[in-house]
Formats: sequence, C-alpha cells, structure tokens
Amino acid sequence: MDSPQEEAPASLSFTLGELAERLGARAVGDASLVLTGVSGLDEARAGELSFFTNLHYKDKLASTKASAVIMKEEGLALFDTSSDRGALIADDPYLTFAKASTLFHPPKAFAPGIDPRAVVEEGAQVDPSAAILACAYVGRGASIGAGTVVYPFTYVGENAVIGRGAILYPGVVVRERCVVGDGTILQPGVVLGGDGFGFAFDKSGPRHFKIPQAGIVEIGRDVEIGANSAIDRATNGVTRIGDGTKIDNLVQIGHNVQVGPLSILCGQVGIAGSSTLGAGVVCGGQVGMGNLVHICDGARIGPKGGVMSDVEEPGDYLGAPIVKSRDFMRQQAALHKAPEMLRTLHKLEKQVAELEKKIEELSGEKA
Amino acid sequence: MDSPQEEAPASLSFTLGELAERLGARAVGDASLVLTGVSGLDEARAGELSFFTNLHYKDKLASTKASAVIMKEEGLALFDTSSDRGALIADDPYLTFAKASTLFHPPKAFAPGIDPRAVVEEGAQVDPSAAILACAYVGRGASIGAGTVVYPFTYVGENAVIGRGAILYPGVVVRERCVVGDGTILQPGVVLGGDGFGFAFDKSGPRHFKIPQAGIVEIGRDVEIGANSAIDRATNGVTRIGDGTKIDNLVQIGHNVQVGPLSILCGQVGIAGSSTLGAGVVCGGQVGMGNLVHICDGARIGPKGGVMSDVEEPGDYLGAPIVKSRDFMRQQAALHKAPEMLRTLHKLEKQVAELEKKIEELSGEKA
Amino acid sequence: MDSPQEEAPASLSFTLGELAERLGARAVGDASLVLTGVSGLDEARAGELSFFTNLHYKDKLASTKASAVIMKEEGLALFDTSSDRGALIADDPYLTFAKASTLFHPPKAFAPGIDPRAVVEEGAQVDPSAAILACAYVGRGASIGAGTVVYPFTYVGENAVIGRGAILYPGVVVRERCVVGDGTILQPGVVLGGDGFGFAFDKSGPRHFKIPQAGIVEIGRDVEIGANSAIDRATNGVTRIGDGTKIDNLVQIGHNVQVGPLSILCGQVGIAGSSTLGAGVVCGGQVGMGNLVHICDGARIGPKGGVMSDVEEPGDYLGAPIVKSRDFMRQQAALHKAPEMLRTLHKLEKQVAELEKKIEELSGEKA
Repeated sequence: MDSPQEEAPASLSFTLGELAERLGARAVGDASLVLTGVSGLDEARAGELSFFTNLHYKDKLASTKASAVIMKEEGLALFDTSSDRGALIADDPYLTFAKASTLFHPPKAFAPGIDPRAVVEEGAQVDPSAAILACAYVGRGASIGAGTVVYPFTYVGENAVIGRGAILYPGVVVRERCVVGDGTILQPGVVLGGDGFGFAFDKSGPRHFKIPQAGIVEIGRDVEIGANSAIDRATNGVTRIGDGTKIDNLVQIGHNVQVGPLSILCGQVGIAGSSTLGAGVVCGGQVGMGNLVHICDGARIGPKGGVMSDVEEPGDYLGAPIVKSRDFMRQQAALHKAPEMLRTLHKLEKQVAELEKKIEELSGEKA
Repeated sequence: MDSPQEEAPASLSFTLGELAERLGARAVGDASLVLTGVSGLDEARAGELSFFTNLHYKDKLASTKASAVIMKEEGLALFDTSSDRGALIADDPYLTFAKASTLFHPPKAFAPGIDPRAVVEEGAQVDPSAAILACAYVGRGASIGAGTVVYPFTYVGENAVIGRGAILYPGVVVRERCVVGDGTILQPGVVLGGDGFGFAFDKSGPRHFKIPQAGIVEIGRDVEIGANSAIDRATNGVTRIGDGTKIDNLVQIGHNVQVGPLSILCGQVGIAGSSTLGAGVVCGGQVGMGNLVHICDGARIGPKGGVMSDVEEPGDYLGAPIVKSRDFMRQQAALHKAPEMLRTLHKLEKQVAELEKKIEELSGEKA
Repeated sequence: MDSPQEEAPASLSFTLGELAERLGARAVGDASLVLTGVSGLDEARAGELSFFTNLHYKDKLASTKASAVIMKEEGLALFDTSSDRGALIADDPYLTFAKASTLFHPPKAFAPGIDPRAVVEEGAQVDPSAAILACAYVGRGASIGAGTVVYPFTYVGENAVIGRGAILYPGVVVRERCVVGDGTILQPGVVLGGDGFGFAFDKSGPRHFKIPQAGIVEIGRDVEIGANSAIDRATNGVTRIGDGTKIDNLVQIGHNVQVGPLSILCGQVGIAGSSTLGAGVVCGGQVGMGNLVHICDGARIGPKGGVMSDVEEPGDYLGAPIVKSRDFMRQQAALHKAPEMLRTLHKLEKQVAELEKKIEELSGEKA
C-alpha cells in the first residue's frame, strides 16, 4: 500500500509579516520568516505556526519546535524570539490561529457546472456557479444556490431549497421541500427530513397508525451538521436549526424541534419531538432530551445528561436527570461514600440501641 | 434563497360533513364548513381542523383558531360550535385526527416502472406496479413487490425480498437475502443486514477472528425504521423485527435479536446481540440492552435505561441498570439528599459518642 | 411475498475427518460423518456442527440435535459419540468453531474488474484484481488494492488509499486522502474523514469560526467498522485506528483520536476529540469518552460508562463517571438502600434527641 499523504498538498506558505497583515496581528521577530503550515505546540515542526492560549501549557510553549506562535502580549515573556523564531500578538490567539489555518488550507475549488454523470431532473434550478458532481441527484423543482457543491450520491429531493455557498458531502439526503441555508455544511450521510416518529395507537388493529409527517426541516445559515446525523421533518410546520449552530456526528433531532442560533450539539445527542433550545445552548456528547422540553439561552448540559423537564436558568448541568453541576458533584461524592454510610448507619443503630438499653437500666435503677 | 413551501401543496379540502362520513365521526355544527388542513390547537389557523384529547389543554381549546376540532362528546361543553365552528365527535380523537391528516396528506403517487437511469440486475423480479426510481440499484435475484417505491441511491442486495407497498427512501441499504415485509417504510440511510459483531479471540495472532455472519434480517409487515438505523444480520438464522413495530432514528440492533410485534424503539436505542423483546415493548430514547437479555411483553423502559438482565414483569422501568420507575424516583430523591445525609450522619456520630461518654460518666458516678 | 432463503446457499459439506484435518482438531466418532452447516447448540439441526465451551450449558449439550460438536477433551464425558454423532476435540472450541464456520461460508467471490456502470475518475489506480461494482465511485488519484471490493454507492474520495483485500459495502464514504488498511471491512454507511468538530468562538460575529480540518483518517489492517459509524479526520495529522481493532455500528470517533490495536468498541460508543485508547481496550455499548482522555492498555469500560478522566489501570470499570466495577456494584447496592437509609437516619435522629433529653434529665436529677 502506498504511503499516504497525511496533509493536504501544502504548497502554500506565508511570511510572518504577511500573516500579521492578513490576520490583523502584530509580528514580533523577523517579518520575513517563512511559515509553511500550522499545528499544535506539541506536534509542530520547524517552519510551522502554532498558538498559545493557556498558561497551563507554558512547558509546551517552552519546548515547541514551531517557528512562530500566536499569543497574547504577555506570552512574549515566555518565548524567545531573539534568534530565528517569531510571534504574532493577537487578542484572541485561538481564533487568530483558526483564521491562519484557513489561509494555509483554503477551501477546495470546484469547476462550476453540472457533471454530465449527475442526474438533475427537469424543473430543478441550479445556479451556474454551483458544482453538481458526478452521481449527484437533484430532484424536480429543487433549487441549488450560487457556489454550492453537491457531491456524488447526494440526494436533493423535490422542491428542496439549498442556499448559496453550501457543501453537501457524499451520501447526504435532503428530502422533499426541506431548506438548507447559505454557507451551511452537511457532512457525509446527513439525513434531513426523514419522517418524524409519530403514531396513534389503534386498538382495533391493533396497530400504530402512522401520523403523516407533512412539515419540513429548515436549516439556517452557517450551520454545520456532522456525519450520519438525522433531523426529522415536522408533523406540520417546521423543524428548525438556527443560524450558526454546529451539530456533531450521529445526532438525532425529532420532529418539530426548534434549536436556537449559535448552539453546539456534540456527538450522539438526541432530542425528542417538539423540544426547544434557546440561543447558545451547549449539549455535551450523548445528551438526551425528552419531548416538549425547553432549554433556555446559555444553558450547558454536560455529557450524557438527561433532560426531562425545562431548564430555566443558564449555567452548567450534569446527570440523568440533570441537576446543577455543583449538585451533581456533591451527589457523586456522597454516592461514593454511600457504602461507608451504610456501614456507619448500622453501627449507629447498634450504638443507639445499646444506649437506650443502658439508659433504661440507669432510669430503672433510679426508680 | 427562495422562500420555501412549509407544507405539502394543500390543494385538498373537505367539508365537516365529508370528514364525519369518512372518519366515522359525528359532525356537530355546520356540515358544509370547509376545512383545508390539520394542525395542533396552538398552531391551527382559521380553516384548519385540530384535536382535543386532554382536559389539561382546555385553555388551548378555548383559544384555538381552528375552525373545527375532533373531540369526545364531553368536549362539547368547552367549545362553542354555535357560530362558524364545528366539532367532530369520536371515541378516540387522536386516532381520528391521524386518519384525518392522512386524508389531507395522501401518500405521494409514483408512476410505476423502472426508471431507465436505475440499475436493475438480470434476474431481479420487479412487480410492474413498483416504482424503481433513477439511481436505485436492485441486485440479482432480488424481488420487489407490487406498489413498492425504491428511491435513488438505495441498494437492494442479491436475493433480497421486498414486499408489497413498501417505501425504501434514499440511501437505504438492504444487504443480500434480507427480507422486508409489506407496507414497511425504511427512512433514508437505514442499513439492514450489516454483519453482526462477532469475533473469536485468537491468541496465536493475536487477532479477533471474524465469525461469518451467515444469517439474515427479516422485517415484518407495517414496520417503520428511522433514518440511519442499523439492524445486523444473524450469525446463523434470523434477526427479526415483528409486525407493526416502529423504530426511530439511529437505533442499533445486534445480530440474532428478536423484537416482538407492535413494539416502539425510540431514537438511539441500542440492543446487543441475541436479546429478545416481547410484544408491545416500549424503549425510550438512548435505552441500551446487553446481550442475551429478554424483555417481556408490555414492559416500558424509560429514556437512557440500561437493561442488563431479564425483565419479567410488565410495567415502567428507569435507570441504568433499570429498576421499577417508582423505585428509581425514590432512589433519586434519596440521592439528592445524600450530601445532607452525610452531614447528618457525621453529626449523629458525634452526638452518640458524646452520649456514650455521658452515660459512661453517669454509670461511673453510680458505681 | 416469496419465502426467503434464511441461509446462504449451503451447497458445501464436509466430513468429520476433513474438518478435523482442516481445523487441526481431533475427530472422535465416525470420520465419514457428513456435516452440512454450523449452528449453536440450541438451534442446530441434524447434520450440523455446533460447539461447547462452557459447563453452564451442559444441558444444551445433552439435548442438542447437532450431529457433531467441537469441544475440549473433557466434554466427551458429557456427549455420546457411540452411535451416529461425532466430536471434534480442540483447545479453543469457540475459535475452532469460527474457523469451521468460515469453511462452510467462504467469502463471496467477485469477478475482478471495473463494472462499466461504476465511475472511476482519471488518475485513479485500481488493481486489476479488485472489483469495482456498478454505481461505485472512485475519485481522482485514489488507489484500490488487490482483491478489494467496492460496492454500489460507495464513494472513495480523491487520493484516498484503500489496501488489499478490503471490502467497502454499499453507501460507504471515504473522504479525500484517508487510508484504509489491508483486509479491513467497512460495513454499509460508514463515513471516514468527515470534518472534525472544531470551532473557535468569534465574539465579533458572533459566530463559531470553523477550524479547517486538514488531516486524515488512517485505518489499520484487519479492522472492521460497523454500519453508519463515523470517524472524523484530524484537524492536522491523523485520526488513527490500530490494526485488528473491531468497531460496531453507529460509533462516533472524533478528530485526532488514536485507538490502539486489537481494541473492541461496541455499538454507539462515542469518543470525543484527541482521546487515546491503548491496545486491547474494550468499550461496551453506548460508552462515552470526553476530550483528551487516555485509556490504558487492557482497560474494559462497561456499557454506558462515562470516561471523563484518564484510566491508568487495566481492569473493569462501570458508571458515569466510571469507577472500578466492584465499587460501582457497592454504590448501586447502597443506592438501592438509600431510601431506607433516609428513613433510618430520621429515626436515629429522633432516638438520639430522645436519649439526649433523658440523659439531661438523669444528669439534672443527680445534680
């Protein structure tokens, strides 16, 4: 087997000075220093740019092989730029690093147009600047916005609406009439608009009678949805994901759910039907939410949390069912001591019985 | 981006009288009232039909904009049908609503036949009334029943058997020899018949030696399986999903599992190999079951429940590992008090030690 | 609906003597006994070969209809081979059974070559002995090793490298530059190389600024990955799955994760970014791991376990967060008694208050 390329072809390089200018940062050291890639402090090699955000990692800063590091002003005291190394001073080093990485790894460009091996049904509207790759499928009445890329084996259903600058990776399914906003990225295998899970029990069958799922899914702008996640269409109306929300892999979102803008749903989160999440909500991995529950703006639910009732205060929550994180910590501490508590309790019961007996005796003697 | 259609093209409308007749309900109010759609009490607009099942929602009934509501006889006392509104009286308003919704949202009709852009291998049997859409794949020896729809990018493996009136949405994979019953719906990305997870450890490798997974999956009639769920083929024999069972998104079912009829498995449930579920079992979201476990008819496992041993009594269960729901509630209540219990216990220890000392003194004084 | 074939066409049969020779086992009984398939003790029919590993199942051995059973020497005392039945004596009956099953169910053979209905882009290198089936897609610069099978609707991205003897089932997505080792099996719907979940918060938007995910996924040799599992590409560098590791369905593995060789990840496990697992680690179903956590060689995390900090000792763990299994059992036992503990505690408080009062009285009387 041939040796693989571990990184994208990295023909790009920038001088420290160029980076400072493009990133709005201040260069310290030789502005002509040439940088050829980005990496974490640990893995960086000579010629690479890294970042330093946290004093906890000052040892890593000291030992890094990176040729330049993005940092706050105060980092300079810990980093020698006198010889052949440089720094970029920025208010938010991590964000600046993310932007630097984007310079080194620009998005892949696609030739616009419809590949002759794609299937685009009559009555679909594809912007001339969009790229419909081989083996993609675009249904009747669907529309694909400017600059959007649709990969092989991706299905865009009838009358679906895909915005501008979106990316639909291979194996994505967008069922009929669903809507995807501008700049949104659907990783491979994402399913939008599967039927919601709704049945009415019919004793006379007996059977679970299917309730038509006649609504849609509407994904906002600048959303990202991870591989093999599934977002169900509404029974009636809209299942909605707000602008700028980011969703990880294998997440399940039920019918009629409303997720606010700028939220973060980590891997394998599951949200049952008709629940609502505010703005900037964070759900850790494997969090589960029941039906018809509301989470307020700014609440953060830790990994594996179970949300069975409304969350009305921002802050950190843990447990299943969730409680405030500090309460969870206390309960866990107590739980760890519970076997000992049980022993102590039995011991106390004996001691108290003994005391009662003795006092009985003492009282009796006195009588 | 064009404004999307939120609802399916709703050219259909019915009078209250027509609906009463078709649904076997009794119309109250103007039988010629025209209804154009269905919706919940909250969201309904003038001209729409809604339903009322629960006295808890009587305020919603009072304030709904729906033009007609399906309800039990007793609901009439709470709903004014004197002016331009109507009611439909039914024994089971929710089921009747589901049926009404089906009238307003009839299943999409497909032109029968094999799209020339589909791939149907030689020796496959496709009923002339089935619709094999563009970019679908039907393997050698597979059979597709009357009226069944196979969407683009769906794979039906060699000798697989798909019944009548089934729907296989885009990206479904039915591997070789697996069986799907009449009227069954597979949402996008469902995988039937992936290899079961079975290995024998071989010290001499060391390696995990793959045990051939030579069985199949057999899905009953009127089953629905949610997006990106995966049901493994049996090692030998059959992994079976009973008639009328409904499975939500991202559910994992291991090899040789047997799920009884009319069960409900909510999103992200996981069932390990060779376990068996009876009839009418309900598993809430993210429930997990170990290997070789049996759940009896009518047991209901709450969300995130962990089932590690047999469930022999119907009823409600919660927790990981599960206990009866009422026990779970009591344990949770006690857990919430555990930090306080710990403090009380320490206080008691001191008090008892103090008492022991005092009694010692009292007894000593007496001696 | 036609009756399905439950088993693969089983034209193969072997005599007991042939099996002994091929499996390196010792035949007991009539060496000319003809066997036509394999099955568990319970399900086996006359003519089939089964296995016996565990004295707990000696009743099943006594009642099996199997014509021959693989067992250790000591099993012979429990199994009558005098008439028309036989045994195969092996040191590791389960492994030997797995190998026997492989004889009865040899891997399906494919005609080598590129199906004319597949899409193989210019510049892809496909070994002449590989089988690229109809409707498969192989991107520019990708390479496919000898004997590898690529099923319909599977996408192999640009410059991806697939080893020898691998199987990529339908609907698999291997994104650009990712690497799959020799003999590795990807079940349907597996996604390799989706973007990692990495964003830097940009207050000025506000928005979650996407960090380019410029690395790859590298899957070792003899790995198996279950249906609809998703393994994200590294931010920079490599997300790596070690040789011989087996991963079940719907597993999520974040960017930059390193999984050691010979590990087992059961269904719906989720591992967040940059975590590392040693060799021979076992994670039960629905286990979740946080970011940047390390699990040492040989640790076994039970189902639904939550791993939030490093695991430094091999052994068995349970709970969320995990503790040693025996501690989990003790804590659960105590938790079950917690409501009773609460009652006991209240009773003790009263008793102690009563005692204090009595002692007060006794002391007072004495004064």
